[in-house]
Amino acid sequence: MKIAIDAMGGDLAPHAPVEGALAAAKEWPDTQLLLVGKPDVVQPLLGSGRPSNISVVEALETIEADDEPVRAVRRKPNSSMVVAARLVKEGEADAMISSGNTGALMTAGLLVVGRMKDIERPGLTSIIPSIDKVGVLTLDLGANMDAKPEHLLQYAMMGSLYRQKVHGISKPRVGLLNVGTEAGKGNELTKVAFELLEQAPIHFIGNVEARDVLERNCDVLVCDGFAGNILLKALEGAGDSLFKVLKAEMTSSLMNKLAAAVLKPSLRRVKQLVDYREHNGAPLLGVNGLVVKSHGSSNALATKNAIRHTRTAIQNGLIAAIADEFGGK
Amino acid sequence: MKIAIDAMGGDLAPHAPVEGALAAAKEWPDTQLLLVGKPDVVQPLLGSGRPSNISVVEALETIEADDEPVRAVRRKPNSSMVVAARLVKEGEADAMISSGNTGALMTAGLLVVGRMKDIERPGLTSIIPSIDKVGVLTLDLGANMDAKPEHLLQYAMMGSLYRQKVHGISKPRVGLLNVGTEAGKGNELTKVAFELLEQAPIHFIGNVEARDVLERNCDVLVCDGFAGNILLKALEGAGDSLFKVLKAEMTSSLMNKLAAAVLKPSLRRVKQLVDYREHNGAPLLGVNGLVVKSHGSSNALATKNAIRHTRTAIQNGLIAAIADEFGGK
Repeated sequence: MKIAIDAMGGDLAPHAPVEGALAAAKEWPDTQLLLVGKPDVVQPLLGSGRPSNISVVEALETIEADDEPVRAVRRKPNSSMVVAARLVKEGEADAMISSGNTGALMTAGLLVVGRMKDIERPGLTSIIPSIDKVGVLTLDLGANMDAKPEHLLQYAMMGSLYRQKVHGISKPRVGLLNVGTEAGKGNELTKVAFELLEQAPIHFIGNVEARDVLERNCDVLVCDGFAGNILLKALEGAGDSLFKVLKAEMTSSLMNKLAAAVLKPSLRRVKQLVDYREHNGAPLLGVNGLVVKSHGSSNALATKNAIRHTRTAIQNGLIAAIADEFGGK
Repeated sequence: MKIAIDAMGGDLAPHAPVEGALAAAKEWPDTQLLLVGKPDVVQPLLGSGRPSNISVVEALETIEADDEPVRAVRRKPNSSMVVAARLVKEGEADAMISSGNTGALMTAGLLVVGRMKDIERPGLTSIIPSIDKVGVLTLDLGANMDAKPEHLLQYAMMGSLYRQKVHGISKPRVGLLNVGTEAGKGNELTKVAFELLEQAPIHFIGNVEARDVLERNCDVLVCDGFAGNILLKALEGAGDSLFKVLKAEMTSSLMNKLAAAVLKPSLRRVKQLVDYREHNGAPLLGVNGLVVKSHGSSNALATKNAIRHTRTAIQNGLIAAIADEFGGK
């Protein structure tokens, strides 16, 4: 299989994607990795002992983090992100991965790779880490800010297939993000979506609350892009802020430092529980190919994990399964 | 001043509200506290040395946590919550506080106390704890699930007055909860609200993100009730889950237990930072009187803190200030 990697996208590019790809190439010799970017930047990072399953695809432009998404994708056809998307569109790659500008990646998915037949609005997914380490697949996280009930229904069905195909969960529990667990709660959107989800060929468990997501209250969490984005960022921010004050407290005296040294492995384990890097790499579902978003601040390990999950999605025919469900490409 | 307290509402009622009122009566002898509830339940808890500034107001019914709000308020006119609201409406009390059913409290505010002239939809507020201990006043948290841009504008103005009058912040920074900080981000609601907020007589600092709320990215955080509720519960849930796994790690071995003992005061400080009890008691803004929501699991200390903040709001004429701003009652 062939995976295109945007070598120029993300806070730590080009080092992180290139190093992640090198590690992945070594672990999975059956996988061809296409590093898309400026050859004079990427080649030197590969060094002399470049594995035979890594190649470089030239893309002389770069989409920046603060570029306006639609304009960037239209005006930079030779950017690493758009070239990678074109490789997927033309069947030259089975998937693409980028840590770059999220809005531009969604636009490239829609405009270059193309929307899947009968999917009205693609949804951006992510695995929110749960304390049991399994994680909650959440969508949409920002592709579709003004979702309609029908969109949430499609997210639920695509998310269920993803959990089955990529994570081997045979009967994923689908929850609807809401302000209370009782039926009839929420806004106009969730009230109507609830009724659609009840009729759908999925294992719908009803409304779920934001406070229980880290306890894995469901396997697939369905929400509109605005609420999903607020949820994800609130959870990330709470973790970051709490660890920041914990760290300050633990270095505030010699005794505290000594005690913290004893607890260091424990604290690291707790921190890892909420670390996005473990679960990194979730696709934009509903486009005609595997377009995978990697976290903007991904390091080499996170990039390698994104490649790992992308391999599994390819091996298990995720895109074909979704296309079948929705009546073919 | 007189404050009516729903003695029967909340997970720890009647003990918590009664004990909180006793502590408050002692600290603030100038304040008359009216405990509203079943006399045969409340009287014994007051004991023999009852302070002269506490009295009991009879209310023989109780609204339960799982009662349907509108029906409960209509069918239980003699419930502690509705009687307390009526005391405010009739000028017998300057404010009411309840830890009971939130939906019913909002309904009692609207139907019994009454909506303020020119306020389209009252907003439920809460202080989200920030790590600098000042907190972020957030509204709406669930009174208005399908908010319109004009509602967010009114929340911003009422929230600003609250921060000025109750917390003495002379120029409160108002932020709009959104998925990114750039102008033009978000859904249809926030895009239009952004423009209204830019024109308003407030110190609007633009869009703010969920990840930075604990760092106090603003003083007044404006959002629709659905997104606000997701934010609040995500932050609460993240704190609870992280402390749960921290605790498990810290008791997993003898060495860890010893180290954790050293760090206990530090850990307690961190936990306090995100403890709602400190900031407990925030009003439903936009009704014709001070209707204060106290956290459902409030203990006596939390109840006392709610009384503290309610006193400040009364002393500083919060309701009159809001009525003035919106053209009188």
